[in-house]
Amino acid sequence: MHTPLCDDLGIEFPIFAFTHCRDVVVAVSKAGGFGVLGAVGFTPEELEIELEWIDKHIGDHPYGVDIVIPNKYEGMDSNLSGDDLKKMLQSMVPQETLNFARGILTDHGVPVPEDPNENALQLLGWTEATATPQVEVALQHPKVTLIANALGTPPPDMIEHIHAAGRKVAALCGSPYQARKHADAGIDIIIAQGGEGGGHCGEVGSIVLWPQVVKEVAPIPVLAAGGIGSGLQIAAALAMGAQGAWSGSQWLMVEEAENTAVQQAAYANASSRDTVRSRSFTGKPCRMLRNDWTEAWEKEGNPEPLGMPLQYMVSGMAVAATHKYPDETVDVAFNPVGQVVGQFTKVEKTAAVIERWVQEYLEATGTLEQLNAAAGA
Amino acid sequence: MHTPLCDDLGIEFPIFAFTHCRDVVVAVSKAGGFGVLGAVGFTPEELEIELEWIDKHIGDHPYGVDIVIPNKYEGMDSNLSGDDLKKMLQSMVPQETLNFARGILTDHGVPVPEDPNENALQLLGWTEATATPQVEVALQHPKVTLIANALGTPPPDMIEHIHAAGRKVAALCGSPYQARKHADAGIDIIIAQGGEGGGHCGEVGSIVLWPQVVKEVAPIPVLAAGGIGSGLQIAAALAMGAQGAWSGSQWLMVEEAENTAVQQAAYANASSRDTVRSRSFTGKPCRMLRNDWTEAWEKEGNPEPLGMPLQYMVSGMAVAATHKYPDETVDVAFNPVGQVVGQFTKVEKTAAVIERWVQEYLEATGTLEQLNAAAGA
Repeated sequence: MHTPLCDDLGIEFPIFAFTHCRDVVVAVSKAGGFGVLGAVGFTPEELEIELEWIDKHIGDHPYGVDIVIPNKYEGMDSNLSGDDLKKMLQSMVPQETLNFARGILTDHGVPVPEDPNENALQLLGWTEATATPQVEVALQHPKVTLIANALGTPPPDMIEHIHAAGRKVAALCGSPYQARKHADAGIDIIIAQGGEGGGHCGEVGSIVLWPQVVKEVAPIPVLAAGGIGSGLQIAAALAMGAQGAWSGSQWLMVEEAENTAVQQAAYANASSRDTVRSRSFTGKPCRMLRNDWTEAWEKEGNPEPLGMPLQYMVSGMAVAATHKYPDETVDVAFNPVGQVVGQFTKVEKTAAVIERWVQEYLEATGTLEQLNAAAGA
Repeated sequence: MHTPLCDDLGIEFPIFAFTHCRDVVVAVSKAGGFGVLGAVGFTPEELEIELEWIDKHIGDHPYGVDIVIPNKYEGMDSNLSGDDLKKMLQSMVPQETLNFARGILTDHGVPVPEDPNENALQLLGWTEATATPQVEVALQHPKVTLIANALGTPPPDMIEHIHAAGRKVAALCGSPYQARKHADAGIDIIIAQGGEGGGHCGEVGSIVLWPQVVKEVAPIPVLAAGGIGSGLQIAAALAMGAQGAWSGSQWLMVEEAENTAVQQAAYANASSRDTVRSRSFTGKPCRMLRNDWTEAWEKEGNPEPLGMPLQYMVSGMAVAATHKYPDETVDVAFNPVGQVVGQFTKVEKTAAVIERWVQEYLEATGTLEQLNAAAGA
């Protein structure tokens, strides 16, 4: 499954693995793919520690860093930053919404800190102000050869800055319209993510979206995202003109991941019909396992989710509890994942997944070659 | 793109075209594909006329008939049939809902008949009682080699009856669970339709659904549906193990179709983000172009859509008006179509579409062969 993009990036397989776990980044890149660390949730200082660790363990392989700068978010037009921005955003969170969120957790027996500043009202790195220092940290690490933005087109000066440092810029999109904006802004690699995808996603399915984006931005290379969980799906993507595959869900189900056993069991037991696009954690539609938390925010009469980044200032305590109290939060945990979760039944080693995908890819392309050969005979 | 299923059915390409237009059935089968006539909306007498016409024009090519027997619908547990069933169902339609529907149309300047029996309160062929006579008619025509059920597993005696007549049975599904039920019931061909699809569809995207269904029911042949609108998408489907593709949206955009010019313009102008899964016409989630009609039924405080087949007894007048008053209904028309509509920009000849798809398929599989050859070099 080697494509021209592999040569550009110096990798063997065009398998891009998005993950929040540094161990997975290292394991993927060492197995011939391209690990990408999600920087959201790390302060610049924490991110520096992660990247140093990766540099030390990854050998000569390259890797990427993923940031999140939405095109639109609450407070984006203010000139505030740091604590001032945070305070202004905190003042925009209605007490009723915060109480409602706390109530969902306490109703499920999940311990909730009395001090709202402990787990709630925290600002996640979902603004230009919080993402810019992350980019600065990443660019200090020469093996970081790709910066990806998970939501929207990065600001022009950031693209210019990353290019000046000799790195590539990638960005996700959910429509040919967004892909065109990326292309016009000088993005090097465009990631077309179908509505099947875990995390933030649009509504157009991958089988429809991928070829439209490929056609829209050619010859800019496109990575296919949303529903990638086997070599069959990568073969489908490459048949439709993608130069590689961007995947996230699979890497929650590897031994190197830090996800809790409770979470991995939830993923292993879920069918593809058990996910939902919900605004209840991040404020923007984000695909995750459906549970009591997501249902509560859907119910008529209950408070509606706030915008990004306000909603996470409310839901952050549920995310923190997901890691701290896995058993108590089983019905209210934050379990972002794509529909492809229905394919996963067990936890594997990262290297075994890459090997399996390559094998499945060869079987899929072999099937097509046989059909063509038989038809020609 | 010849697969073993093609030999079973005596066709050249595994391109299955669902359409309500007899001309399209003929054109597809004559071009090497397999036309399937949607029987819903035809009385047994009308269906007989259509099939006679097809028999006369299709030469020696086979074709199929598509019926709709949902697994669940209002009134299915009654022992009534004919006018008695119709009367009972009519009594279940609230006057408020009927008035609301009429109001949407009159607000848009669409003429609505005074007599509700003219276009409303009609029962469509969406029950076992209405579908069974359609099957009887179809089996009188030897070139009808396939009966497909668009919703759910057909009743056991119907499957047995069709098999006894030497024909095959196909059925659509939106999950591996439904596919398993089809397989256990003896269905010959399983159509896995992703949530991208036009008309009745589930929520799981094609790229995730197709390989799951193929795996679940192997070695029963699977047709990939939902998002098929080019040879690239067929290559993707066959790479993932499907034996063919089932398509509907494309055939609204051919010269042989009876769709109005206004409808075809709406499809040509729509992007893949302009469709919605709505219960507002049929009572079950059905993908169509979003417009004032679909939005009205979503709005809080307005009547909710009824179940199947009751909702059509309310929406039937909008469907009738779509054909009768194309200009007046431009914002309230029934335009069922899949997300793939975003790919269509013009009306083509049916034979040209088949030829294009075959060519695109060869290009897609050629791309994969080149990648493999380069990787092996």
